[in-house]
Amino acid sequence: MNLHDPVAKISDENIQLAKERQAQLTKPPGSLGKLEELAVMFSAIQKNQHPTVDKVHITIFAADHGIADEGVSAFPQSVTTEMIKNFSRGGAAISVLAKEQNAKLEVVNLGTVIEVGELEGVISSCIAKSTANFSRQAAMTKTQLEKAFQAGEAAVQRALDAGANVFIGGEMGIANTSSATALACAYLNKAAIEIAGAGTGLDEGGISHKAQVIQQALEKHQASALNAVDILRFFGGFEIAALTGAYLFAAQKGLPVVVDGFITTAAALAAVKINAECANWFIYSHQSDEQGHKRILKALNAEPLINLNMRLGEGSGAAIAIPLLRQACAIHSNMATFAEAGVSTGE
Amino acid sequence: MNLHDPVAKISDENIQLAKERQAQLTKPPGSLGKLEELAVMFSAIQKNQHPTVDKVHITIFAADHGIADEGVSAFPQSVTTEMIKNFSRGGAAISVLAKEQNAKLEVVNLGTVIEVGELEGVISSCIAKSTANFSRQAAMTKTQLEKAFQAGEAAVQRALDAGANVFIGGEMGIANTSSATALACAYLNKAAIEIAGAGTGLDEGGISHKAQVIQQALEKHQASALNAVDILRFFGGFEIAALTGAYLFAAQKGLPVVVDGFITTAAALAAVKINAECANWFIYSHQSDEQGHKRILKALNAEPLINLNMRLGEGSGAAIAIPLLRQACAIHSNMATFAEAGVSTGE
Repeated sequence: MNLHDPVAKISDENIQLAKERQAQLTKPPGSLGKLEELAVMFSAIQKNQHPTVDKVHITIFAADHGIADEGVSAFPQSVTTEMIKNFSRGGAAISVLAKEQNAKLEVVNLGTVIEVGELEGVISSCIAKSTANFSRQAAMTKTQLEKAFQAGEAAVQRALDAGANVFIGGEMGIANTSSATALACAYLNKAAIEIAGAGTGLDEGGISHKAQVIQQALEKHQASALNAVDILRFFGGFEIAALTGAYLFAAQKGLPVVVDGFITTAAALAAVKINAECANWFIYSHQSDEQGHKRILKALNAEPLINLNMRLGEGSGAAIAIPLLRQACAIHSNMATFAEAGVSTGE
Repeated sequence: MNLHDPVAKISDENIQLAKERQAQLTKPPGSLGKLEELAVMFSAIQKNQHPTVDKVHITIFAADHGIADEGVSAFPQSVTTEMIKNFSRGGAAISVLAKEQNAKLEVVNLGTVIEVGELEGVISSCIAKSTANFSRQAAMTKTQLEKAFQAGEAAVQRALDAGANVFIGGEMGIANTSSATALACAYLNKAAIEIAGAGTGLDEGGISHKAQVIQQALEKHQASALNAVDILRFFGGFEIAALTGAYLFAAQKGLPVVVDGFITTAAALAAVKINAECANWFIYSHQSDEQGHKRILKALNAEPLINLNMRLGEGSGAAIAIPLLRQACAIHSNMATFAEAGVSTGE
């Protein structure tokens, strides 16, 4: 994958055909709001008037973060490994949701401090035990960043091979809200205190400490002078870079992406900063409870579909939104037209 | 049904048990936001830790409105009857959504200007061909209001008999946003221009005319001096009063209600004004595109689950939200606890 290659185009003609069908369905024009936009998008992408979202591919990228050494998370670093095991056994929220949605779920382990071993449903793709501590040095080497991009690309290729209609990237990595915060600050030129939040459950003192650690790192690395790819390398995590790679490759191949919460939206921001056109392929699922998420969404002109005050990650918010896409497609496919139903149109 | 009879209680002990389980699941406390609140609600109501929303009962109440004579809708009055036929044939948005959700869908016809005849899935329960034109006189007589309440009660009784976990009321009736607007104004002491919206698709001139008609009616009937039941009788529709009756009876019987958009929320407001405690049984599904909806929700301290800029009615927004309830229940039932998964808890 060349990061800067053009993304796939959605045909204007197919958009027009889908809009024409929406206008004929027995409802006041526009009365299904964003469901109509989703239906038009999937109809145009799939080039037919019976679009489906029956095949959903979820990849959770997991990795540890050097910045955890600075005491920026409410949970110990062992939890990254413990949660990978929990994903594999089907006990995590995303495991339950994937099963409910009849979605394919896989985990890609990019490197953890505590070894995971071989597990069902977990692809071992270790880059290093963790990123470096970005308060001291760049989180990744160029080679490591490249490996993370490749892991993202490979996941999307598996989704394409399986005939997926949408791709969901999830993430697990203790301290990764610190990484996402630093990325948002660097890309949007914000102070850490404007973006940093509770993550898995910090109190006010914890958030203040986290913001201070991140602010110092931003200044140390002169974040504002870095290019989009280097920002990701300096402050990102393996899982975040893999998500960015996955999103870029999905857009290039024409596979729509459902973006989850704060971490994945930071990865989407990185993708857009690297290759702006990819934004056309992103559907933002939910507004998370992290203040930083709202700020990134605003910068991306993105209006998420739901707001349930979730802040879990794992791809859970994106999975929750899948039935909305499915219902949008079902309406487009199965509603009667005014002519079929003999219903009068508006004045 | 006595409108003022006490509503069912949700046991504090069962709420506590459900909260304890949520606290043990492998996620940061509170990180699933409103999904946790929904799961706790259904677990406590169903008195077990494996709650389900597998049986959904949807009743669409349909009726015509005398106020349509004042030219307040973008669609002709014949559409009420035409849409009842469309519901019966499975071509409407709510028909498609009910099928997707495997929900029971029935239509109760309370009276239309153009006769409907016998149709599959449509219960004929005609009160009159339409309400009276509320710009001239009370929309309903006391007997008509009573019949509408009874139709709502009967629908909820059918839902209970079928073992439903939730009740959704939908509505169809050309000009019923005018009725809902008048109700909201009377209950909340607002001017019509603060509440009136486009309905099925009025332009600015149309909205202005609609607001003027409603404002004059409010003043003519001295709306602020009426009691809660009389406000419903003067300005409501048969379908809105049936919804109010259904909501009150559901709350008395302990059946949770998923409220849809502007019209149904006006019916819920009437129910709360008549018997305040019933609010505990209402789940607000979506924020519609009608400005009046936002104002009623605020008055009810209600935060809807989704915001998709829908404004269709029929119960469609409530149906769209059903998978959220189901996923909340699945998470509660099926996620692993920290102990089961061997995951460390927070600091």
